[in-house]
Amino acid sequence: MTTIDDGRAYGRESGEADPELVEVGPGTRAGELLRRYWHPVGRSEEATTQPRTVSVLGEELVLFRDRSGTPGLIEPRCCHRGTTLYFGRVEENGIRCPYHGWLFAADGRCLDQPCEPDRGRNKTSYRQPWYPVFDYHGLLFTYMGPAHKQPLFPRYDIFEDLDEETEEMVIIDHFAFGGPTVAPCNWFQTHENAMDPYHVFILHNAISGPQFDPKLEIWPRISFQRHAWGVTATQDRDLPDGTTLHRVTEIRVPTVRVIPTPTLSVLGKTNNLSWALPIDDTHTRVFAMVRKPKGLPPQGLPVYGGDKSWFDLTDEEHQLYPGDYEAQVGQGAITRHSVERLASSDRGVSMVRRQFKEQVRVVADGGDPVGVTFDGDGAESVIAGNYIIGPDTDLDTIPLSETLR
Amino acid sequence: MTTIDDGRAYGRESGEADPELVEVGPGTRAGELLRRYWHPVGRSEEATTQPRTVSVLGEELVLFRDRSGTPGLIEPRCCHRGTTLYFGRVEENGIRCPYHGWLFAADGRCLDQPCEPDRGRNKTSYRQPWYPVFDYHGLLFTYMGPAHKQPLFPRYDIFEDLDEETEEMVIIDHFAFGGPTVAPCNWFQTHENAMDPYHVFILHNAISGPQFDPKLEIWPRISFQRHAWGVTATQDRDLPDGTTLHRVTEIRVPTVRVIPTPTLSVLGKTNNLSWALPIDDTHTRVFAMVRKPKGLPPQGLPVYGGDKSWFDLTDEEHQLYPGDYEAQVGQGAITRHSVERLASSDRGVSMVRRQFKEQVRVVADGGDPVGVTFDGDGAESVIAGNYIIGPDTDLDTIPLSETLR
Amino acid sequence: MTTIDDGRAYGRESGEADPELVEVGPGTRAGELLRRYWHPVGRSEEATTQPRTVSVLGEELVLFRDRSGTPGLIEPRCCHRGTTLYFGRVEENGIRCPYHGWLFAADGRCLDQPCEPDRGRNKTSYRQPWYPVFDYHGLLFTYMGPAHKQPLFPRYDIFEDLDEETEEMVIIDHFAFGGPTVAPCNWFQTHENAMDPYHVFILHNAISGPQFDPKLEIWPRISFQRHAWGVTATQDRDLPDGTTLHRVTEIRVPTVRVIPTPTLSVLGKTNNLSWALPIDDTHTRVFAMVRKPKGLPPQGLPVYGGDKSWFDLTDEEHQLYPGDYEAQVGQGAITRHSVERLASSDRGVSMVRRQFKEQVRVVADGGDPVGVTFDGDGAESVIAGNYIIGPDTDLDTIPLSETLR
Repeated sequence: MTTIDDGRAYGRESGEADPELVEVGPGTRAGELLRRYWHPVGRSEEATTQPRTVSVLGEELVLFRDRSGTPGLIEPRCCHRGTTLYFGRVEENGIRCPYHGWLFAADGRCLDQPCEPDRGRNKTSYRQPWYPVFDYHGLLFTYMGPAHKQPLFPRYDIFEDLDEETEEMVIIDHFAFGGPTVAPCNWFQTHENAMDPYHVFILHNAISGPQFDPKLEIWPRISFQRHAWGVTATQDRDLPDGTTLHRVTEIRVPTVRVIPTPTLSVLGKTNNLSWALPIDDTHTRVFAMVRKPKGLPPQGLPVYGGDKSWFDLTDEEHQLYPGDYEAQVGQGAITRHSVERLASSDRGVSMVRRQFKEQVRVVADGGDPVGVTFDGDGAESVIAGNYIIGPDTDLDTIPLSETLR
Repeated sequence: MTTIDDGRAYGRESGEADPELVEVGPGTRAGELLRRYWHPVGRSEEATTQPRTVSVLGEELVLFRDRSGTPGLIEPRCCHRGTTLYFGRVEENGIRCPYHGWLFAADGRCLDQPCEPDRGRNKTSYRQPWYPVFDYHGLLFTYMGPAHKQPLFPRYDIFEDLDEETEEMVIIDHFAFGGPTVAPCNWFQTHENAMDPYHVFILHNAISGPQFDPKLEIWPRISFQRHAWGVTATQDRDLPDGTTLHRVTEIRVPTVRVIPTPTLSVLGKTNNLSWALPIDDTHTRVFAMVRKPKGLPPQGLPVYGGDKSWFDLTDEEHQLYPGDYEAQVGQGAITRHSVERLASSDRGVSMVRRQFKEQVRVVADGGDPVGVTFDGDGAESVIAGNYIIGPDTDLDTIPLSETLR
Repeated sequence: MTTIDDGRAYGRESGEADPELVEVGPGTRAGELLRRYWHPVGRSEEATTQPRTVSVLGEELVLFRDRSGTPGLIEPRCCHRGTTLYFGRVEENGIRCPYHGWLFAADGRCLDQPCEPDRGRNKTSYRQPWYPVFDYHGLLFTYMGPAHKQPLFPRYDIFEDLDEETEEMVIIDHFAFGGPTVAPCNWFQTHENAMDPYHVFILHNAISGPQFDPKLEIWPRISFQRHAWGVTATQDRDLPDGTTLHRVTEIRVPTVRVIPTPTLSVLGKTNNLSWALPIDDTHTRVFAMVRKPKGLPPQGLPVYGGDKSWFDLTDEEHQLYPGDYEAQVGQGAITRHSVERLASSDRGVSMVRRQFKEQVRVVADGGDPVGVTFDGDGAESVIAGNYIIGPDTDLDTIPLSETLR
């Protein structure tokens, strides 16, 4: 009897993840790349005089806002004897440890040591570990890398020059616009999905759909573009009225994904942009920022089984109508890249991975990764959108229009 | 002061399990022996067009039945990008991954790749890891070993030639006939119990009893027999009416235990047989198959505290009326053999262990273990039963009757 | 750009615990010191004919009382085949394993083996691992060290010569006199708190207070004293009426803390004493014994937020009114000593740690630690108390009064 290879499961490899894609903790190669950028940690209104715990890149931190209005993000363990400052008392200029009363400013300086002689003759030698916080349109960001590498906060053109009379900014933090806020899986497998336009036809249409605008059911011409700052995909669909729907999505290193609303409720340049937040190696949260006219809903949510929200579904209906949550969390807590077999439709995913790993190596080699700037105004220009192109459209005004010429 | 040995607990060893008895995972020595046999995975009606997760020998798998009626048992992770096929859509000839739509037959062949050119020019080079499934009287079995070592499915004489008019087969899957379906402990400690007739007098009579037929309270003559295929125990009890109750129980390598009903509701050769299913190293399920006249209950269940079922008991009553579940799970998630001290009443248990370990070594050395056949009809003959022997009984018709001569 | 040190959290050490302070398990250095003393395991009424599981120093044990009244504390796994004796049947002179009926006395001797020839010809060669139990005023203690090192049980003077007519002993086992019974953190960080008088002014007064008697808000003169058997702190407060409140607290190696009631309901020598019980490395229970007049409550409990008990508080109120539980559990499951920065107010804590580690080394080097005696009556004299000192007080009657002279 000789060995038969009929592909059965006996002896298959269990496989492993690529650490350069998935690790987020301090000291890991990918974690050090992530630590060269600003990351969202919560809505501005979540920083209050009641301290709360937040987890970012595998680090548990305490977020608060002192009574003078300054937000603080600090190591929970008091630098003295280690009691958590989650139980600290927030005062005018900082947070006070409940155990021995040491008072720390939002930037970690020790302002008072009431049980020490002269309330702390030596208190300037103590500092509670801290991170800087930046408020961008109501979303708080932090930079968790080395001090001398702190970049400017990047400002996106689509969110500039808001007309406060008629427009407003909305922050949405449910995973994949509909579904749980936190996905119990690694962030990267949720991220690369944004450069995988093919799954829309299967997951969101053939299997569970239509979850989005019916025009997205038309099979498009797809191409991918590599940029210094990320990767884009273009999808061109010839519509029945003779126009073309030219849809551009983008991923920016490291965690930004720009996906124009798939309900096509907004045409032209996108009005929203999302940041993946790697909470730790196996949990991910997504913060989306949407610019919209006052009084209108931000965008339609995907529907399941015809007219249900994700939370309305039974277990069996989740099996019948899977969405982004099921497909991505369904790859496991951390997908195992070594037992994947990529095919031609995975080209965008491959490009995103390759670029990310290149930047991991740039940082490991002592360099500065793409997308960080240390001077200027930090302005960045987004190109993603749903563009309707007719015979009279000036293609020079349409990003990445060469695919249509 | 010199050291005193008064047996106190200070310095005792914590002990360890014998890996050749307890490990079930792929690549382990005992796991490789187990993988040379067929194992039950669920009732036939559990394989439907709604995929379900099953765990067997430490492997998590997806069970389904395609719309043409073929059951499938496959690796959950899609071989493409790893999304679980638990969320797959079952079609006429297979299961389709929800993420990119790859369609796999029950035997793993890839039948469609809708996002690839020509729906997958190269699709025959992909195969989803799979295991074969065999339906035996409504219970599904799988073989998880190497393809070229796949044995015939063993058919037991006691389940042959069913008279469909008057008889039926019933599958019972609660642990120890009464109690939870899944026991949170290693399978082997549940298995060797079947060759431990002494505990019946203590656990099921003196401590908690009588849980079974009162005749079993009579102290019997006990002997054990080693066979090529397993171990048997005979218990002979002299009954008040001058007859002898000759009870034979058997264990067959690797996981079959044949225990004639202890309520003595069936006399003669047994009408039931059980398979232990090692779910993983610390969880066990037992599937029993019972042949019975239509319209009658399969067998009485053990009672606790006089007239209660296992599920009716309070915590304190579980302490007062322990049964098989408490005794076996009470040995720990995995019992620690190195701190046992076997005595003469453990002879049957020792024989079962010794034979199992011998077969582990046969497989490790490249051989084929007992009880697997590659040609013929797979028929096996069971000998266990409750035999009443009177002065006129022809002992030649009674299995293992030499103990009575 | 050069590296900036602004104290931010990037690159901070996560730190580690000192194993000589925190480990409690068998074979660890600190665990071996702890095993040279008696430890409380439960109230006398918890040892009954219904076996119960208790965990002490990282060992899970079974506590019972045979029908003749003798309490037993034994290894749960039967020495025969390993079934837990939690399901054992308690009889006149011991506990019987439910599986094969072996009967063990409270001191582990095997008294019966009903399935063995002659009910166990060789039974004296078996012994169930056991520990001795001592009942002290209704609290059961065990000694888990080597037999030849078993010390006398220490009897405290404050609990001798009880007037049974008018006095009674009360055992209180909630953590920190108000709050959960079991604290999910290492025992040592709860213990050293008793030699940290400064936190009283902050935690129990400025932050959450007053939780205790208002006199304790007066800032005292504090000093610490090292003794052969432990460490004491004295706090001297000049009261408005010209008297001095002289408060002495003590810690005795290894786990005894003597903290006179902070509500000052008892003056003079303390009426209570507590033992920390290290359940395992990350769980701690405290047993306090209080001597009191019949008919009076044992002592006031701390109040939170003015008039609430710990259990009445919402999550937000626990943040607003932290107490001992929050401060000590808030140091983490096991505090990390290497990232502490002790200051002058931590002198008492440092003394307790130093002495404990010295004793760890005494035992590791083969010696006998302080506080164990092998002959005599085991009597020990406590000195802690709340002493009011006026102009006429004879200072020679006040312990540690040199701080006042």
